Amino acid sequence: MSVFLDACRVRPTAYTPIWIMRQAGRYLPEYRKLRAQVDFVKLTRTPELAAEATLQPLRRYELDAGILFSDIMTPLQGMGIELEFEPGPIVRDPIRTDEQIDALPPLVPERDVPFVLEAVRLVRANAPRMTPLIGFAGAPFTLFCYLVCGRPSKEFAAARAFLYSHPASAVRLLTHLADAMAAYLRAQAHSGAQALMLFESWGGLLALKEYRRFALPAVQRTVAALRDLEVPIIYYANQGSALMQAVAELDVDVVGVDWRTSLAANRQILGASKAIQGNLDPAALFASPAELRVQADAVLADAGRAPGHIFNLGHGIWPDTDPDAVARLIDHVHERTARD
Amino acid sequence: MSVFLDACRVRPTAYTPIWIMRQAGRYLPEYRKLRAQVDFVKLTRTPELAAEATLQPLRRYELDAGILFSDIMTPLQGMGIELEFEPGPIVRDPIRTDEQIDALPPLVPERDVPFVLEAVRLVRANAPRMTPLIGFAGAPFTLFCYLVCGRPSKEFAAARAFLYSHPASAVRLLTHLADAMAAYLRAQAHSGAQALMLFESWGGLLALKEYRRFALPAVQRTVAALRDLEVPIIYYANQGSALMQAVAELDVDVVGVDWRTSLAANRQILGASKAIQGNLDPAALFASPAELRVQADAVLADAGRAPGHIFNLGHGIWPDTDPDAVARLIDHVHERTARD
Repeated sequence: MSVFLDACRVRPTAYTPIWIMRQAGRYLPEYRKLRAQVDFVKLTRTPELAAEATLQPLRRYELDAGILFSDIMTPLQGMGIELEFEPGPIVRDPIRTDEQIDALPPLVPERDVPFVLEAVRLVRANAPRMTPLIGFAGAPFTLFCYLVCGRPSKEFAAARAFLYSHPASAVRLLTHLADAMAAYLRAQAHSGAQALMLFESWGGLLALKEYRRFALPAVQRTVAALRDLEVPIIYYANQGSALMQAVAELDVDVVGVDWRTSLAANRQILGASKAIQGNLDPAALFASPAELRVQADAVLADAGRAPGHIFNLGHGIWPDTDPDAVARLIDHVHERTARD
Repeated sequence: MSVFLDACRVRPTAYTPIWIMRQAGRYLPEYRKLRAQVDFVKLTRTPELAAEATLQPLRRYELDAGILFSDIMTPLQGMGIELEFEPGPIVRDPIRTDEQIDALPPLVPERDVPFVLEAVRLVRANAPRMTPLIGFAGAPFTLFCYLVCGRPSKEFAAARAFLYSHPASAVRLLTHLADAMAAYLRAQAHSGAQALMLFESWGGLLALKEYRRFALPAVQRTVAALRDLEVPIIYYANQGSALMQAVAELDVDVVGVDWRTSLAANRQILGASKAIQGNLDPAALFASPAELRVQADAVLADAGRAPGHIFNLGHGIWPDTDPDAVARLIDHVHERTARD
């Protein structure tokens, strides 16, 4: 077992593991070089290139986990939904009717997104230091936001209005997405992913009542379909500080939280059986080296010394981050938490 | 006194007052007609037109308060900052250096934004049913976000990075903005505004620690400079559910909260001496009439029957909202809460 996987299981570890959301990305010169050669969609659909992007940060840093380079919209493309990236995903025909929902095919990952599964296999075969690999998917409500709105949005107004104006249709679409993402994550695990993560990027747009009515049952459906696998499941709830009482009911191993959520308060709510992941402000990587250490120590203090903390940022790393700051952060977390 | 002003003072009222954030706006046909004739900036800078936009919703609906039609960036234009709206505000030269900060002049409202004060006077002279008028300003950190980033942004990354990389300069700019907004709000009160509101649209991007270090002292500075006035002060903390322990320390009369924040839990945190304002999800106005009543009743139940609740949306009304849904909401809140 690895330090990361042990921490997912709330087992004692020799030090606190760390990985970085969006660790394969534009802040790395080697990634920008890769992207200069191919566009984003081709990168996600070419196993050798997706594997290369996944491995880049693992070569550069002593990270405790890798995460597959892909996009949460990739499996939707596999289901026949026409998308463009500008750079956010644009859905050509936003989904707003029962006819469109019923016309959505199920996702058969081996048929629809074989390149993702091949990328997983390539990473597993080539990961330095046997670093464990996290497979991932978008949580159903988050995908729902993109599909109904058709484009990224600060408010996702059309999607949120749809919940109130067409609640039964909303549940229908969420259920379809929940089943598709269960199939997608299962296939990633079968191909070698050692942990599975669901990104709920937009659940925090919902009040607790609507979260419980729409988003929570959908993600619980996905999770329930995966619980026979011997693979830890991580649920990242962006902007979820007001939702944690509900998130605690999810049968997941790890809850990832953003930088605004108190780790100490939420470890209490989540209970000792779940690990917590997070939550340094991505902006803190712009502090001086000394101040960055202070900020990292504050996260460690907030998490406490009990097992079950995976250090991470509270949100994806920003493209203009200094790669050396990331190296300093990783080293500091490892050194500061090493048990004698 | 009015029902609205009594509720601001946590006094018993004959019914629960209601007004709607961005009630003068694009969802109203009469507003769209006005905007077809003049651009947004001219509308904010022409007293007769700004007053007309302010009064439109007061003529159409039985609202318990009006709010001046203006923009949080208007006083910054008065300070000489060059802006365009596309439609979000674009700052030609984002502020990133001490030289730029020190070159910012103080705001002298009577000289720099006389048209705003004249609009206040016109509204006061013409408000139907003597409806009280709320003057407003952006809270210092929210203005800081626009000035440092230069444009609206989901993350306001440059502004948040600036807090970590240049903390002393950040405090300097925030202090300047706090003083300018105090002068601005004082002038609005002297011109006739009967309540003052500070919009902290982006405070919820900060973790509690950074909120306490940067945003809270700045807004407290503005509030402290206004406390000799006999005018209630409202602080709207968007996305602020994780910040309420700190917000409770502010010497304001009313705290406005977004739709994700529990009114019951936060009335406890804020204490019995502060009123609370909110917090129907703007998306709920897209529900059926029956479901809208259910949603409004849920807000009323969450607020409880104790004095000091001002009904509002949890965020600005969306442009494609049905004006008739707004009428139904206002009538329902009045009827449901009328004391026998």
